[in-house]
Amino acid sequence: MAPFFFGKIPAIRRCGGGIQRRYHWLMTESTHAWLVLAHAHVRVPELNKLLERFDDVAAIVQQKPGELKASGLPEEKCAAIASPPAEPIAAAEEWLQQDGHEVIAFGADAYPEMLRQIPGAPLLLYVNGDVDALHLPSLAIIGSRNPTQGGLRNALEFSRHLAQQGFVIVSGLAQGIDAAAHRGALDATGKTVAFLGHGIDRVYPAVNRDLAHAIAANGALVSEYPLGSPPERWHFPERNRLISGLCLGTLVIEAARRSGSLITARLAAEQGREVFALPGSIHNPLARGCHTLIRQGAKLVETASDILAELSPLASHMKQTAEMAEPEDIAPPLGDDDYSELRRVLSHDPVTINELESQSGLTIDQLSSMLLILELHGEVESLSGGRYALSG
Amino acid sequence: MAPFFFGKIPAIRRCGGGIQRRYHWLMTESTHAWLVLAHAHVRVPELNKLLERFDDVAAIVQQKPGELKASGLPEEKCAAIASPPAEPIAAAEEWLQQDGHEVIAFGADAYPEMLRQIPGAPLLLYVNGDVDALHLPSLAIIGSRNPTQGGLRNALEFSRHLAQQGFVIVSGLAQGIDAAAHRGALDATGKTVAFLGHGIDRVYPAVNRDLAHAIAANGALVSEYPLGSPPERWHFPERNRLISGLCLGTLVIEAARRSGSLITARLAAEQGREVFALPGSIHNPLARGCHTLIRQGAKLVETASDILAELSPLASHMKQTAEMAEPEDIAPPLGDDDYSELRRVLSHDPVTINELESQSGLTIDQLSSMLLILELHGEVESLSGGRYALSG
Repeated sequence: MAPFFFGKIPAIRRCGGGIQRRYHWLMTESTHAWLVLAHAHVRVPELNKLLERFDDVAAIVQQKPGELKASGLPEEKCAAIASPPAEPIAAAEEWLQQDGHEVIAFGADAYPEMLRQIPGAPLLLYVNGDVDALHLPSLAIIGSRNPTQGGLRNALEFSRHLAQQGFVIVSGLAQGIDAAAHRGALDATGKTVAFLGHGIDRVYPAVNRDLAHAIAANGALVSEYPLGSPPERWHFPERNRLISGLCLGTLVIEAARRSGSLITARLAAEQGREVFALPGSIHNPLARGCHTLIRQGAKLVETASDILAELSPLASHMKQTAEMAEPEDIAPPLGDDDYSELRRVLSHDPVTINELESQSGLTIDQLSSMLLILELHGEVESLSGGRYALSG
Repeated sequence: MAPFFFGKIPAIRRCGGGIQRRYHWLMTESTHAWLVLAHAHVRVPELNKLLERFDDVAAIVQQKPGELKASGLPEEKCAAIASPPAEPIAAAEEWLQQDGHEVIAFGADAYPEMLRQIPGAPLLLYVNGDVDALHLPSLAIIGSRNPTQGGLRNALEFSRHLAQQGFVIVSGLAQGIDAAAHRGALDATGKTVAFLGHGIDRVYPAVNRDLAHAIAANGALVSEYPLGSPPERWHFPERNRLISGLCLGTLVIEAARRSGSLITARLAAEQGREVFALPGSIHNPLARGCHTLIRQGAKLVETASDILAELSPLASHMKQTAEMAEPEDIAPPLGDDDYSELRRVLSHDPVTINELESQSGLTIDQLSSMLLILELHGEVESLSGGRYALSG
């Protein structure tokens, strides 16, 4: 899809520098306009049509229904734009006043490039947490809501390991594999993102309330549904396209032969993303879905290294593209004292991140980011067994 | 390879009719000649060269070394033909006097077509048991000598089920998966064939002595090595080409990442045979070999039906080719009383072979063969869950 101009794109203020980027939504006239369009369920292709006739979103929401209808917009959407539901929109604007609450409009810089590419990209994303997490190399880890103990352990361990390697772990906040995937990333002090099948002001299932708070504090909760939307059954398969779409790849841990996880995996393949599946015993019914995927061409995965081998080049490319786009913004502070300290303890003999932690006084979290940066700069090599060494 | 004429091919006497064929070796001058060539380690391409100059094998063994050398045969083989080791050859001729002991020369009708096709087909096969078993659709089931209990159970169950479906189960008489594969076929009163890495007059490992006797009585022990040959280490990978070559497909149950089973699987692929592998837990080191094979293109197998789906068409083709070659010989006795009885108890409602057994008074063994024959004639359909029904 060719890039297009939205007129006034929501104003974005950048604070901080270095490798951290922060986008803040300024409550403007256009914020209100985007909320009106979102509540009218206007889709991206419909918006494109409207922007052929009107300057920007603020202009669109000032039109009469007849004017809007000339762009081919369905009648009920024209009516909804002309007479927007005041109360829910006011509630959303109030919600936006709180720390960490943001909405990101399609076409804004803060809109994740990976999602912009997919068919059916949402018009607006409601985010609670760190918008940056949506711009980092990500892996979806998904599976059954009723997994085996072994499946849970695998989800936790793969998530931990890959989060440590700098991947954002994305899932759907369901019980079972999803919850274990989020928890693994949190255990590793990595980042994790949950896409919800309901309004972002609700938590479902209720048992995951604490987990949801932890995700918002160490990543992001994201929804395309307006505040207050209930967890309708059809939202979940619809939401799955965002889980697969945001990520370079999707790993299915355990899944029955007919299950939502297989839908997500199929979407991932259609979106041109990698699909990974864990094999299991032929006597475990929850291995069947994974085996089906492997037969269909998913990559059979035994260890996290199998995933890294496929995704690291893509992740580097993603980083490099981001660097090319905004070189001054994400140039790493390679002269920092922390980097000098890390370089001091690194050598050509491979060491684990835990060894680096004890030798450097830096945290695992700091080391993970810094090693990834140094790797992208070609200074450090990531070796098997989670070990690192100076390159060359 | 174009078919060629061997001069006097070992005389073959056929007894019996119907679908059963029996080949017996008549002790003739040419038998002696073939044993001389085999003890001289003459290979099939070398024999072809010799037959360009000499009428038949009997003529070859009467030549002086100089005459033989003109065909490009290595000097030590010429010497071995001109001065054959009298004692071992006499011992082989004595061994051949016993019931069920046979040798099959390359190019004889009794030589298995599947082995004739492979590169490095043996000049002579020593057989103890039923030569017919080498002409039926076969599946190799192989794997670790130190499998898990689960692996053993899987080998036993797949072998049982596929032997019941009329497949000859082929393996290498090693401990572990091999032994379980042979036992499964015997449990199902099916046929099983073991290829040995030593002379057929020895049993190795000794713990499999009773199993070897049972295989000879319900299938065949086969070796390409002269009587008395010890189980040299290099014999086993060499022998593996015969396991894979005789079979339409090779199923690997459990195998380490570097193991003989993977060699056999690779040979199977090179020979144009199907390769099947059972997936397993990522925490089971003996699943790794199977996972490696699946990544390389082996078919992931969860149930015996997965194998039947691939092999049944090939098995039918094999049968049909055999029928076309010798129509009067394997035309099934469809008018027999037994077939009338089977047709009486069959209907369009699917039934298991056990139900047919109790209703017909026929044995499972009889029923398996008869159902396969009726299936090849299009009268019977084989359905999921090992059930059968009349076609159409």
